[in-house]
Amino acid sequence: MIKAGIIGATGYTGVELLRLLALHDDVSIEVVTSRELEGTAVATLFPNLRGYVDLAFTAPDDDALAACDVVFYATPHTVAMKTAAKLMARGVRVIDLSADFRLKDQAEWEQWYKEPHESPELIAKAVYGLPEVNRDQIREAQLIAVPGCYPTAVQLGYLPLLENGLVDASRLIADAKSGVSGAGRKAAVGSLLCESSESMNAYGVAGHRHLPEISQGLRAAAGGDVGLTFIPHLTPMIRGIHATLYAAPVGKVSAEQLQALYEDRYQSERFVDVMPMGSQPATRNVKGTNRCQLAVHYLEHSNNIVVLSVIDNLVKGASGQAVQNMNIMFGLNESAGLKTISLLL
Amino acid sequence: MIKAGIIGATGYTGVELLRLLALHDDVSIEVVTSRELEGTAVATLFPNLRGYVDLAFTAPDDDALAACDVVFYATPHTVAMKTAAKLMARGVRVIDLSADFRLKDQAEWEQWYKEPHESPELIAKAVYGLPEVNRDQIREAQLIAVPGCYPTAVQLGYLPLLENGLVDASRLIADAKSGVSGAGRKAAVGSLLCESSESMNAYGVAGHRHLPEISQGLRAAAGGDVGLTFIPHLTPMIRGIHATLYAAPVGKVSAEQLQALYEDRYQSERFVDVMPMGSQPATRNVKGTNRCQLAVHYLEHSNNIVVLSVIDNLVKGASGQAVQNMNIMFGLNESAGLKTISLLL
Amino acid sequence: MIKAGIIGATGYTGVELLRLLALHDDVSIEVVTSRELEGTAVATLFPNLRGYVDLAFTAPDDDALAACDVVFYATPHTVAMKTAAKLMARGVRVIDLSADFRLKDQAEWEQWYKEPHESPELIAKAVYGLPEVNRDQIREAQLIAVPGCYPTAVQLGYLPLLENGLVDASRLIADAKSGVSGAGRKAAVGSLLCESSESMNAYGVAGHRHLPEISQGLRAAAGGDVGLTFIPHLTPMIRGIHATLYAAPVGKVSAEQLQALYEDRYQSERFVDVMPMGSQPATRNVKGTNRCQLAVHYLEHSNNIVVLSVIDNLVKGASGQAVQNMNIMFGLNESAGLKTISLLL
Amino acid sequence: MIKAGIIGATGYTGVELLRLLALHDDVSIEVVTSRELEGTAVATLFPNLRGYVDLAFTAPDDDALAACDVVFYATPHTVAMKTAAKLMARGVRVIDLSADFRLKDQAEWEQWYKEPHESPELIAKAVYGLPEVNRDQIREAQLIAVPGCYPTAVQLGYLPLLENGLVDASRLIADAKSGVSGAGRKAAVGSLLCESSESMNAYGVAGHRHLPEISQGLRAAAGGDVGLTFIPHLTPMIRGIHATLYAAPVGKVSAEQLQALYEDRYQSERFVDVMPMGSQPATRNVKGTNRCQLAVHYLEHSNNIVVLSVIDNLVKGASGQAVQNMNIMFGLNESAGLKTISLLL
Repeated sequence: MIKAGIIGATGYTGVELLRLLALHDDVSIEVVTSRELEGTAVATLFPNLRGYVDLAFTAPDDDALAACDVVFYATPHTVAMKTAAKLMARGVRVIDLSADFRLKDQAEWEQWYKEPHESPELIAKAVYGLPEVNRDQIREAQLIAVPGCYPTAVQLGYLPLLENGLVDASRLIADAKSGVSGAGRKAAVGSLLCESSESMNAYGVAGHRHLPEISQGLRAAAGGDVGLTFIPHLTPMIRGIHATLYAAPVGKVSAEQLQALYEDRYQSERFVDVMPMGSQPATRNVKGTNRCQLAVHYLEHSNNIVVLSVIDNLVKGASGQAVQNMNIMFGLNESAGLKTISLLL
Repeated sequence: MIKAGIIGATGYTGVELLRLLALHDDVSIEVVTSRELEGTAVATLFPNLRGYVDLAFTAPDDDALAACDVVFYATPHTVAMKTAAKLMARGVRVIDLSADFRLKDQAEWEQWYKEPHESPELIAKAVYGLPEVNRDQIREAQLIAVPGCYPTAVQLGYLPLLENGLVDASRLIADAKSGVSGAGRKAAVGSLLCESSESMNAYGVAGHRHLPEISQGLRAAAGGDVGLTFIPHLTPMIRGIHATLYAAPVGKVSAEQLQALYEDRYQSERFVDVMPMGSQPATRNVKGTNRCQLAVHYLEHSNNIVVLSVIDNLVKGASGQAVQNMNIMFGLNESAGLKTISLLL
Repeated sequence: MIKAGIIGATGYTGVELLRLLALHDDVSIEVVTSRELEGTAVATLFPNLRGYVDLAFTAPDDDALAACDVVFYATPHTVAMKTAAKLMARGVRVIDLSADFRLKDQAEWEQWYKEPHESPELIAKAVYGLPEVNRDQIREAQLIAVPGCYPTAVQLGYLPLLENGLVDASRLIADAKSGVSGAGRKAAVGSLLCESSESMNAYGVAGHRHLPEISQGLRAAAGGDVGLTFIPHLTPMIRGIHATLYAAPVGKVSAEQLQALYEDRYQSERFVDVMPMGSQPATRNVKGTNRCQLAVHYLEHSNNIVVLSVIDNLVKGASGQAVQNMNIMFGLNESAGLKTISLLL
Repeated sequence: MIKAGIIGATGYTGVELLRLLALHDDVSIEVVTSRELEGTAVATLFPNLRGYVDLAFTAPDDDALAACDVVFYATPHTVAMKTAAKLMARGVRVIDLSADFRLKDQAEWEQWYKEPHESPELIAKAVYGLPEVNRDQIREAQLIAVPGCYPTAVQLGYLPLLENGLVDASRLIADAKSGVSGAGRKAAVGSLLCESSESMNAYGVAGHRHLPEISQGLRAAAGGDVGLTFIPHLTPMIRGIHATLYAAPVGKVSAEQLQALYEDRYQSERFVDVMPMGSQPATRNVKGTNRCQLAVHYLEHSNNIVVLSVIDNLVKGASGQAVQNMNIMFGLNESAGLKTISLLL
């Protein structure tokens, strides 16, 4: 039984982790921390967990956390970089769902997050937890930086094209649409039902924090520089990311060739589902699951490649991917605790 | 391994059954029938099932169905009453999610469904599949009439009061609100997003088909006649029923006494969750799960009892309850395949 | 041209007032106050108003407000009771959309709002602004207490029955459903799209602040005590209230008689639309409009009367009714600025 | 008073036309046709129109229609091309909201709509009703082809760039998101709330009928060929189109220069609102109104121009634009009947 702790479990990635871990046969949730809600039963805050999670929130306590085999940070950024080292020194494996260790370039991190990084020595140690790229390093890692939601959807969509040098990497356009849960469980006017339902808008056009993370991943895949325009949009639904990815082929391509390329690249990936040619995946297909569904299209009339990539931002885009990383780290079946089927409706 | 067949699996209760059975460790789905979609892969229609259900829809075939241990009817009413007898004669156990065998009074059935009942001899044989009332009969049954969604939410809410004669049974008022999936996967203008989103209305005020079913169950609990006003409402959400139940106490009652009564009545029921005093359950707490959450309130200022009862209409109100019945019939753990936690959001 | 000021125009009733007044031919908006947003253009906060409202928010200023003919308080409760007297002393007519002057019984107000009332002398002066009851007093009033949203829907629905003594006033049950905008433009976790979409729940079961307001109005109509159970529910939509009202007839009644009663009571009311017999009004019918749609049903099988009453909580339930009051006070056509048709979808 | 007829008023563009024309001071609605609903009161089908439209649907009748000054076709494509000539011969001015006369190239029309065009002689006569481009011709036209919803949003967004040759017209990418009302009031499974709420997907990736219409308009603006990738998406909301438009500058540009260009191009257009630099318009800003809101961004890091363009697909994208055309044709104030402010929420 893997003993797990969750720091900052009052947000959406937190409750999602609790949902997944509570039914994971190999995991026992030992500690769930929250400073403000110390003493409150977890199931009082999240009544879906009644009967499944009997713990109360506790204030963060080093000894309790250090007694865990693995600790998840489901916190806003800057929390993990301040305290992870301490836990790691006591042998705990750390899975950070925040952005603290995602960027390999410290200066770039500091530019986008507008404060000094407090654990620069851990940046190099951290493994970027995208199993479809870094499975081997994840196995041995003590610190995982779980990818962001947009970065997961966009990278999985572009990887086959870039790894094979099939497209003009200097003019990639990623038009991404996210449900409102991406904004978290923070009381903010913009996330109110009355403000975000029955409407849609772009945001972060001038620059979104996921841009450098995506670029870093795409550069690695392309083996060189990339030019990326990334425009995120807020969509009136709770969960889901739909990334529509555009790329211009550098040579002659065909729909059949692209289809084969994608099927080949992901044939042994159980959480990446390449749809049949001509498909247009809907985010609801993967809601509540750790799956990414992909479809690749070639438009002859404009000689453009369009990739459609959908995930659940809270699962494959956060907590599910965190559990997938944990499974790999602890030598479990990679899909342990993640075999679920979307409600569809 | 229980061999299961599903007749009419193209509707919402059908895809929900598929979702639940596909992950049920003791069940193998053998046959999924649909006349119009014969030959189409199930996962083409329902892309959430890709990788989980590899069957194609087939035209109904007696031999294929008779080779099953259990056959579910996820059909509109009047289908099961025409063909169930044949399957039962060959030893198959039948779980009917439609209304064909719910009413014990044939004349009443014919009045509400406006056609002659074609299997009157099965009406008496059928067990009304509300485990919280009829568990022992379900165990031995060959034919189960799975309760309707509203009837499940309303009966579970009223049972403790009526079984104990605590309220005036002649003036019960059940104000119920349902998500749009209650109308099924039928192309109907009223169920379009544009018609049913951002709006709410009552329907069936003059008389809804669930009224006689609810009354039948409440009469049994009360041991006598009941007077019931039942008003269903269409609510702009996909899943969920919220029943708000009103009853006038016949003697002196207290909130504490009512709370104890409900906790006691349902203490060994794993799918009925009596919430703490003062609770106001939300339908999202139980979305995708087989759980009914209940809260009982006593309003001193108006001397009225108010019970709040929430279920997922497609799970505890249909397919989940069907699986629960199957588990009981086949001697499995009653919650096999039903241990899921709501997404909450 | 009526010079109008709005205090606290950053909330939902505020922006709704702005929308209505900006197109009102007889009104000029002179002052829009907000302490936090002083200096911000109104149309920056509310981009639907670009080109229609060119003002910026200003800090509340007595002289600027006193120069208005009418001042609207679109503030949380307790603001109007602290400052309205000053404006009234300078001849301004005041229309208060908050709860400060709705209850005639000071002690009751203080019990429900949990603080001392600071303008008890104005309570008697204030006219309860339900034109369908108090039109004559409104005409002469200097201070209007605009009714709450639930109270408007519930009173308009019950009035004909109670004014004519047709029902048992001791056991009224009002089951009301509201869109999320009723909670206002306040950053609160419970009003987030992720929390309130795809779910429904009752709230305020133990006692909601609109209960005494409704009771006060119903007592006046009945000419005596009433017993009211009032249960509000949160519904996943932005706007709209659907009140389902139950009442037991004291003598013999018929659907035709009730229909005639309602049509007669409201025949000269341009904002109350009695639907044809058998109707089930949807909240979307009246979205964005100042209309209340009513349908009255008699259920023979349970000898119960059910009234369905729908309004837009922000219009007839707040800002539209405020404008209607203003029109009456200033001798304008009662529907000036209020002739709009719902989008329906 | 302009006498107006509407053919096929039972769909969403029909009810929207009725809503707008019923409050238009210079218009009297004379005839509203529907074969299936002959005899039904319009306000029975659309209860938002109670008290505003007293007509019943009638079967199409040449004499009744010919007595109108203007007839609107709110029909599926192929209806107008079969009957408009007859009406025009009797002097009626025709405004067609369908696609029958939008494409100037008959062969292209027949390729996309897969049937022979039955009024080729009217194709040349028809004026494409985008007032921001063709105002002068609209004034004199007898036959207007009202632009499609996507084409309106996309063309208004791209016009200033293409008219001035500022971008590489061979690689335009229009990623567009539409509410579900774009699919019309047709009972179709894909448009059910349960299918389209809480999800998002691309559709028509291989080729959407609006592609040739958009290309035709962009070619005219660019004065030459264009290469366009157009990907529409279904978004879980009722109304609204959000077009995100990408274009690569051919020379050096700056945000300030682009802003000035857009403000200049649209300075006298009352229904195109160029937002301040850095804006990200939301579809709700324009819901229910005839307005297009635009924002233009220049991304230095990827040397890309991004234009955000939002409209209400049923108003500026259909019925509102139709009324705007009528106003121009009849010499009225161009915004007569169209001065409305979005509800915002």
